[in-house]
Amino acid sequence: MGWEEQVRRVVPYIPGEQPKQKGIIKLNTNECPYPPSPLVKEYAAAFETELLRLYPDPEASLLVNALADYYGVDADQVFVGVGSDDVLAMSFLTFFNSEKPVLFPDITYSFYDVWAELFHIPYRCPELDNDFRLVKEDYLTENGGIVIPNPNAPTGLFESLDTIEEIVAGNPDSMVIIDEAYVDFGGVSAMSLVDKYDNLLVVQTFSKSRAMAGIRIGFAVGSKKAIGYLKDVKFSFNSYTMNAPSIAWGTASIRDDGYFKETVGKIINTRERVKKELAGLGFTFPDSMSNFIFASHETIPAAELFQALKQEGIYVRYFNKPRIDNYLRITVGTDEEMDRLLTFLKQIIH
Amino acid sequence: MGWEEQVRRVVPYIPGEQPKQKGIIKLNTNECPYPPSPLVKEYAAAFETELLRLYPDPEASLLVNALADYYGVDADQVFVGVGSDDVLAMSFLTFFNSEKPVLFPDITYSFYDVWAELFHIPYRCPELDNDFRLVKEDYLTENGGIVIPNPNAPTGLFESLDTIEEIVAGNPDSMVIIDEAYVDFGGVSAMSLVDKYDNLLVVQTFSKSRAMAGIRIGFAVGSKKAIGYLKDVKFSFNSYTMNAPSIAWGTASIRDDGYFKETVGKIINTRERVKKELAGLGFTFPDSMSNFIFASHETIPAAELFQALKQEGIYVRYFNKPRIDNYLRITVGTDEEMDRLLTFLKQIIH
Repeated sequence: MGWEEQVRRVVPYIPGEQPKQKGIIKLNTNECPYPPSPLVKEYAAAFETELLRLYPDPEASLLVNALADYYGVDADQVFVGVGSDDVLAMSFLTFFNSEKPVLFPDITYSFYDVWAELFHIPYRCPELDNDFRLVKEDYLTENGGIVIPNPNAPTGLFESLDTIEEIVAGNPDSMVIIDEAYVDFGGVSAMSLVDKYDNLLVVQTFSKSRAMAGIRIGFAVGSKKAIGYLKDVKFSFNSYTMNAPSIAWGTASIRDDGYFKETVGKIINTRERVKKELAGLGFTFPDSMSNFIFASHETIPAAELFQALKQEGIYVRYFNKPRIDNYLRITVGTDEEMDRLLTFLKQIIH
Repeated sequence: MGWEEQVRRVVPYIPGEQPKQKGIIKLNTNECPYPPSPLVKEYAAAFETELLRLYPDPEASLLVNALADYYGVDADQVFVGVGSDDVLAMSFLTFFNSEKPVLFPDITYSFYDVWAELFHIPYRCPELDNDFRLVKEDYLTENGGIVIPNPNAPTGLFESLDTIEEIVAGNPDSMVIIDEAYVDFGGVSAMSLVDKYDNLLVVQTFSKSRAMAGIRIGFAVGSKKAIGYLKDVKFSFNSYTMNAPSIAWGTASIRDDGYFKETVGKIINTRERVKKELAGLGFTFPDSMSNFIFASHETIPAAELFQALKQEGIYVRYFNKPRIDNYLRITVGTDEEMDRLLTFLKQIIH
């Protein structure tokens, strides 16, 4: 039929599996192994479903103000969305509108090229070096925008704030988006630079360090000008993206900083211990500053390990892509989960 | 700075006010005056916030299956989104990609032209006739897609299914979207036609008849083919749009059909009574099949009434636009709220 000729044809991003069986050790989508703050539970218990008859606050002010207070910026420097994917999609749409290519690394979050294709944005992917490090000079050439995840996924590597600042400072004609989904696990945020550079947008999420993947909250911090443009596009797409539970419960999470720091600390400790154990088993990996380890074994192919683990009920992530097809991305779970992983790996490797 | 030259500049849609003061009679955004089903409250009380650490089901299968069962279609004929605005925005992006203009009425939901501008889609707005009725022939000319709200907003008028079918049948080369946000208040859904025409997409919402504006759920029903294309675009934008509470509580709402029918029945009864009273006060209005009345007074200008009502703490909607700038869009509230409105109108009109 003729109507199909007008359809926007795209190849969608495929998220990690969400198995419904019980008893699975789920180390494949970088979720937090611990529950959200007990304050979220309290807010949920007090939630009045009667009020759902009303539209939520289109500005999500309660949540925006909590974030602004927490990060020491003004409320009009904060934008919230339905997970950082929503924030990033809106940002691509808002800021990347030129004939020049948008730049992001060849090995990175595999949604960037999907958004570029969706919005018909040209793009180019400079290669990371052999240690999976960013080559700074690659981002100091003509471009239509830049998006860099820091720490990078799936490598887990963190690039210094000096490197980031050089790239931002060297691109006054482009928006530079730093995707900090994993920054709370040992990185340093570029938020300290947003008052100095109005072409910088820092994006974070509640899905990893805040253990709230199920509530869908992401946010961006930037200059008032940049956030203003982003809000105009968002309000041209959907007035009310954040529902009432996400506004209330997200605020609860921000208000319990003690629990947040404790959870993140536990994950970092587990990660560092697991790094040592994996090295002892013959694995190599970039020095992750995230809540996952990107590991390759000296003798057993990653694809084989991936299948063996899956049969054992241990889900990790495997990307069948150039340069990384011998790596597994293993989320850092609880100590107990990681012990079960390590015990099984010892059995099949020895 | 140079980066701003690449920004997508848009004039966003402005939603109705959400006043935060208590005691306001809020008849300005077509919300339901009654709370959601008690079953929603039950599901909320049983909701486990611990599980928020996990991503939600990206397919929102629980909710999709509940909708498919309820409307007697297959699950792969149902698409869900963050309110019908999200569903419509994704649909514009998916289906309207031609150099020919998309068609929608001159007097209609004021988000359609905003989406068209956002995505750089050409559009043309055929005039409704003097009774605010659709002129069918206007939609049987060459176009790049069609979107028709039925009942229309802000007029409340319902066009017969025969008219809709003629338009769908006459446009095999275009997607025809019927926006049925208000259909539960007396209209007849075009869903019965989706198995006959694969260029038809029917969009509905939980924000009006299901009293859940605060949870953000909209959905589309169409051919498997059309829904498949829409899902590809959605999964190229954001894998997880529906958060865990919206999936669970939306399902609860669908499962309590008795409450739904009772609520809708009450609103229809109130609307019919208020129509009579308004007519007695010198108002005229199209014969609304929605949960609002679009009323014009024989002597007092709408802008004046709007201000007087606002000062009294009664919020209605006023559009300062050609052809409709002497009308007020008044949401049908509870009987008590409508009595307060009528009492005040009697005072100032007498």
